[in-house]
Amino acid sequence: MHLGPLQKVRLHYRPLVANMLKHLSKVRLKPVSSEKEAHSSVKYLFPKTAHQVSCRLVQEEREACSALKVGVFFSGGQAAGGHNVIAGLFDALKQIHTHSELVGFLEGPIGVLENRRKILGEDAIAPYRNQGGFDLIGSGRLKIETKEQFAKALQNTQDLDGIVVIGGDDSNTNAALMAEFFAAHGSKTKVVGVPKTIDGDLRSEDIEMSFGFDSACKTYAELIGNIAKDALSAKKYYHFIKLMGRSASHITLECALQTQPNLALIGEERKSLAEIVDEIVDLVKKRKEAGKEYGVILVPEGLIEFIPEIEQLIQELNQLLAKSEPISHLTPASAAIFADLPEKIQKQLTMQRDSHGNVQVSMIETELLLIEKVKKKCPHLQVVQHFLGYEGRSCLPSNFDANYSYALGLFSALCIRDQLTGVIGSIQHLRGSVDAWHFKAVPISRLMHFEMRQGKEKPVIQKTLVDMNQSSYIEFSRKRVSWQLQDQYISPGPIQFFGDPELTDSVPVTL
Amino acid sequence: MHLGPLQKVRLHYRPLVANMLKHLSKVRLKPVSSEKEAHSSVKYLFPKTAHQVSCRLVQEEREACSALKVGVFFSGGQAAGGHNVIAGLFDALKQIHTHSELVGFLEGPIGVLENRRKILGEDAIAPYRNQGGFDLIGSGRLKIETKEQFAKALQNTQDLDGIVVIGGDDSNTNAALMAEFFAAHGSKTKVVGVPKTIDGDLRSEDIEMSFGFDSACKTYAELIGNIAKDALSAKKYYHFIKLMGRSASHITLECALQTQPNLALIGEERKSLAEIVDEIVDLVKKRKEAGKEYGVILVPEGLIEFIPEIEQLIQELNQLLAKSEPISHLTPASAAIFADLPEKIQKQLTMQRDSHGNVQVSMIETELLLIEKVKKKCPHLQVVQHFLGYEGRSCLPSNFDANYSYALGLFSALCIRDQLTGVIGSIQHLRGSVDAWHFKAVPISRLMHFEMRQGKEKPVIQKTLVDMNQSSYIEFSRKRVSWQLQDQYISPGPIQFFGDPELTDSVPVTL
Repeated sequence: MHLGPLQKVRLHYRPLVANMLKHLSKVRLKPVSSEKEAHSSVKYLFPKTAHQVSCRLVQEEREACSALKVGVFFSGGQAAGGHNVIAGLFDALKQIHTHSELVGFLEGPIGVLENRRKILGEDAIAPYRNQGGFDLIGSGRLKIETKEQFAKALQNTQDLDGIVVIGGDDSNTNAALMAEFFAAHGSKTKVVGVPKTIDGDLRSEDIEMSFGFDSACKTYAELIGNIAKDALSAKKYYHFIKLMGRSASHITLECALQTQPNLALIGEERKSLAEIVDEIVDLVKKRKEAGKEYGVILVPEGLIEFIPEIEQLIQELNQLLAKSEPISHLTPASAAIFADLPEKIQKQLTMQRDSHGNVQVSMIETELLLIEKVKKKCPHLQVVQHFLGYEGRSCLPSNFDANYSYALGLFSALCIRDQLTGVIGSIQHLRGSVDAWHFKAVPISRLMHFEMRQGKEKPVIQKTLVDMNQSSYIEFSRKRVSWQLQDQYISPGPIQFFGDPELTDSVPVTL
Repeated sequence: MHLGPLQKVRLHYRPLVANMLKHLSKVRLKPVSSEKEAHSSVKYLFPKTAHQVSCRLVQEEREACSALKVGVFFSGGQAAGGHNVIAGLFDALKQIHTHSELVGFLEGPIGVLENRRKILGEDAIAPYRNQGGFDLIGSGRLKIETKEQFAKALQNTQDLDGIVVIGGDDSNTNAALMAEFFAAHGSKTKVVGVPKTIDGDLRSEDIEMSFGFDSACKTYAELIGNIAKDALSAKKYYHFIKLMGRSASHITLECALQTQPNLALIGEERKSLAEIVDEIVDLVKKRKEAGKEYGVILVPEGLIEFIPEIEQLIQELNQLLAKSEPISHLTPASAAIFADLPEKIQKQLTMQRDSHGNVQVSMIETELLLIEKVKKKCPHLQVVQHFLGYEGRSCLPSNFDANYSYALGLFSALCIRDQLTGVIGSIQHLRGSVDAWHFKAVPISRLMHFEMRQGKEKPVIQKTLVDMNQSSYIEFSRKRVSWQLQDQYISPGPIQFFGDPELTDSVPVTL
């Protein structure tokens, strides 16, 4: 473990902890009596766990508790704050009982199936406090979702009082199914989820925000701001900046509000390819008339999924590919769209397959597609293409993410202590000081809706998209007009950890 | 002008100023008596200015000085600190005489030729103090290098006591030629250069470092560190990160020492393509044996220029293209190299031309070339390709760059006041506190050597390459072996502006 000077200093940061979480023997989780019953499909699919209602953390002295043995693993892509979930979980377990134990499963869900473990004591955890990445125990994308896998997981976690799953929408869906399976098989092992994803799409009435979103957006905004300053100084390039974030455009919206680019595309506006291209061409022409041959355009990674004609084309391609039929069998409308795409995009649509044999949407260079289309109408445009993604997932967590993820870790321990399972940690009023935060354990099944997949009704946590009625989108719509021709770029600069709390402790604009 | 909270706070940063530069009426520039005579070629080409020797700033009370009118412009790519050169220049001019004036020429050298000016008073400068970018007056890549251009520049600067050129090696070469031209035509306008470039290649016995290098490298190192943490957490990707920096590998060397990647290629090692590919393949195989199928590899932008067989190929291509001959006329050796290149690289070699009709080396995706070659031998390698460049040129300047560039600005004013021309500001002992800094004005002609170009002997400031004998390269060579298999990644994190001076005021490792 090699640490730079800033990393070393950050080891000693003490996350701000709500008073309520300081003395764990004086609080307990109590059911929210007013909550209505779960939907009948939920009760049908989660017979053992769906009777649960959400529980709030309340002040109430409780009897001493015996030592707990808890497991934890990461699932999916990195998000800043992951190590603080572990640190919080560990610190809470030790406060609950000095003989409590924490074990990490290595490299994500596969570590559970293969029972590969690492004992997480203070010595192991100390060098990772407030650090980025998931490297203490690693992560992975395998999913625990079949009966056989659940059985294996049950077998390998028998000695545990609980297991904490740090993951996104899919991982938490599977955590709920695992909790149900464990309960149905009489296991004492509780399953608790923690909302993690930089994408910001794991959001609902109960989940205000996942951890990692703030640090990732701040890092991207730093870079977008630097690029915008550069564009404004050199005055010769259009910078097309694609941003990670999967389907939803939350990251793009947040970064747009932080940096005020000339244009930020939002997938959820569901514009046609022609409309998007025209919008950019129009921007370029108007700016040229104003003597400005440069600009900054943000493109969400998921944009392409929302373009109706491309969506249709991808569906048809998936069907043809499944039947090994040639591309000439596309409908005339889709064939025309396909023929009009740049060669490289055509290749990306037909050559790369995901594990189900489908078009790999995330591999399509949407920003290149737009560039090529725009260049046909503006041949002299000088363009620089960027993709910001990996740069922001494993950065040092911002104070907000460090505090938030640490609290999620502490709270997960309480969920297990108080015998809840199939729940996710929900912290509300995140805009306020930590003492204003409300802590709730929400049955994951209550976040679900049902989708027909391969003829079966499947429960899933729906990804939350940018809502055209959310206040941050309305603010964006109002402001963006003036960003087009006037250059109102903001360069937020790098995340600061010391100094004025206005700088160090800011929260996302879209929170 | 829209500023974020950190930008606003940075407006009030007061660059650390050496005591010697606090009372400008108590110092003057005095010739260094020990300096030997300029080379005869220099004296031949710079008859009016080559008699000058370097001057040191010494404590000596001087008589009051009349108001000065000075011009300033940026030349070439952005580097963090540019606005502080202007701020320092302005503050010094005002201290020298309250009626002094500063004018900026817009959009770089072309602003001088077209006499497009902006009066730079405190109101104009204040919102740009300690900010990134060159947007106060813009920059450009046009060169003032012909007699006609010098004559135009002379005409448009007649009212000025001096002009400050903030630029890299070429711009300073031209500044020296302009100074000579002005002197030969009896102009009172002095020309003073300021060493600017993120590339770090404007370095010599006299110039320890150009401003902007530190902030750019710290920004790139932040991102490399984040990516390395991500690689170590996900354990599935090799990240190939190309770094800006033109021919020389200074940025890559600095970033490597800051982040300790598994491999950092250094162009100046002049390895063949086969050697480089074998080195990467060997790394990948050895790491795989150690159970590690991920890694971080740094690739300097200029690498390709140093690969002997590619260098030969490019030379031949340039000759063929100049004569409009077909590619089939390549020598057999070069034809074989060409045939073996990925199609995309072949296109980049033959389709893109610079203004002289030559192959545009900077447009070649060297990292892609290496990836494709390596993938032939390691087909299952999962790769992510990055290019870090524009993200680091216009960032908020680090304290070091803010202090250094401000001092260069102050010092340029003194050079003009003390009637020096064709000189560049040189600050030495930069590793020490600002009070340990030594200030020297060095005739730019003394930094030059002579190159035959199109049959004529031309004076140029040679780009300084990474020297295999420099201590930082030796340190790198010693350390890099252990970086290959053990993961010793360091994640330096974002530039900090507040808190412990060890964090906020660090200087480049390779200084």
